[in-house]
Amino acid sequence: MSRLLDNVCSELQRLPGIGRRTALRLAMHILKMEPETVDSLATSIASFRHDIRYCRCCNNLSDSELCPICTDTRRDRSLVCVVEQVQDLMSIENTGQYHGLYHVLGGVISPMQGIGPSDLKIDLLCDKLLTGEIKEVIIAISTSVEGETTLFYLLSRLKAFPDVKVTTIARGIGFGDELEYVDELTITHALLNRREVAK
Amino acid sequence: MSRLLDNVCSELQRLPGIGRRTALRLAMHILKMEPETVDSLATSIASFRHDIRYCRCCNNLSDSELCPICTDTRRDRSLVCVVEQVQDLMSIENTGQYHGLYHVLGGVISPMQGIGPSDLKIDLLCDKLLTGEIKEVIIAISTSVEGETTLFYLLSRLKAFPDVKVTTIARGIGFGDELEYVDELTITHALLNRREVAK
Repeated sequence: MSRLLDNVCSELQRLPGIGRRTALRLAMHILKMEPETVDSLATSIASFRHDIRYCRCCNNLSDSELCPICTDTRRDRSLVCVVEQVQDLMSIENTGQYHGLYHVLGGVISPMQGIGPSDLKIDLLCDKLLTGEIKEVIIAISTSVEGETTLFYLLSRLKAFPDVKVTTIARGIGFGDELEYVDELTITHALLNRREVAK
Repeated sequence: MSRLLDNVCSELQRLPGIGRRTALRLAMHILKMEPETVDSLATSIASFRHDIRYCRCCNNLSDSELCPICTDTRRDRSLVCVVEQVQDLMSIENTGQYHGLYHVLGGVISPMQGIGPSDLKIDLLCDKLLTGEIKEVIIAISTSVEGETTLFYLLSRLKAFPDVKVTTIARGIGFGDELEYVDELTITHALLNRREVAK
């Protein structure tokens, strides 16, 4: 087998979800692409890794010291939504319904994976709250065991700011979900948090 | 969204089977990789596209003018196996059971995709047969409509070499296949080509 082909396949296999066969299929596709297109693919990968920065204020991925959300003057600076990772921020941004700021923790507390509170950007969040500008912290982290642990830890830290309202996003039945297939915990929460409708 | 992130996602989406969400997942993984590892990934992609060559003799992917199979003196030079693409060659090589040479056509005749006989390396195969060294041509192309068209065209060209034996690989029920789920054509072929077993 060609050393160049072998090389590119091995390298592609470092990426998640890419096995030997997929790597080979990608390599064969790369072969059919224009050399310039392949160059821009390669360059974008390398420069993304080298030049990306984390926003000094919210830990979002950024091209500069502050991310576009933190520098956007039209956003509501009294509201901060705490998320685990950048992908979650993007999901919320995609709704176009949230106009406050974010705070990316960079993970959840997980003793199994050796991630403690000090590995997350919790101090950075507290520093931001010290300014007094923030009125509400919306916690939007997952309901996994690690997520709940992180939530309780966060709540204990947020006790130091009695004037700041703390909320969590609503748990309930998703739109399009069949009640038949929804887990008991979600249904229980959905029942407990039922809302009155106008007659 | 960060321009660097947006860039790498768009570029990754040029690859087959990679949509927006997968591209984002790959980008997030790239972020966690060592910068040196990312560099070698990017370099391997670019240099694969730029430096790869096609074997002058069999059209296999190669790092130099002739591929390792064509230059291997231990291989049986009287046998040539004709395949559609490099992946097929690799599948056969993986069995470790074939010791002859190969010939990679680079596709099959497909009027729908505008691929005619002249787009395939058929002349190169005929040139190789002119030397008289080859005693048997094994045709191992797929049984699709395009594959069968290519087979018939190949057979018509190979008529010019009456001393060369032409074979096709056996069609039948694959090991582990359930007869219940095998198509009628394969079963018909498997019945017609039944083999006697020793009692």
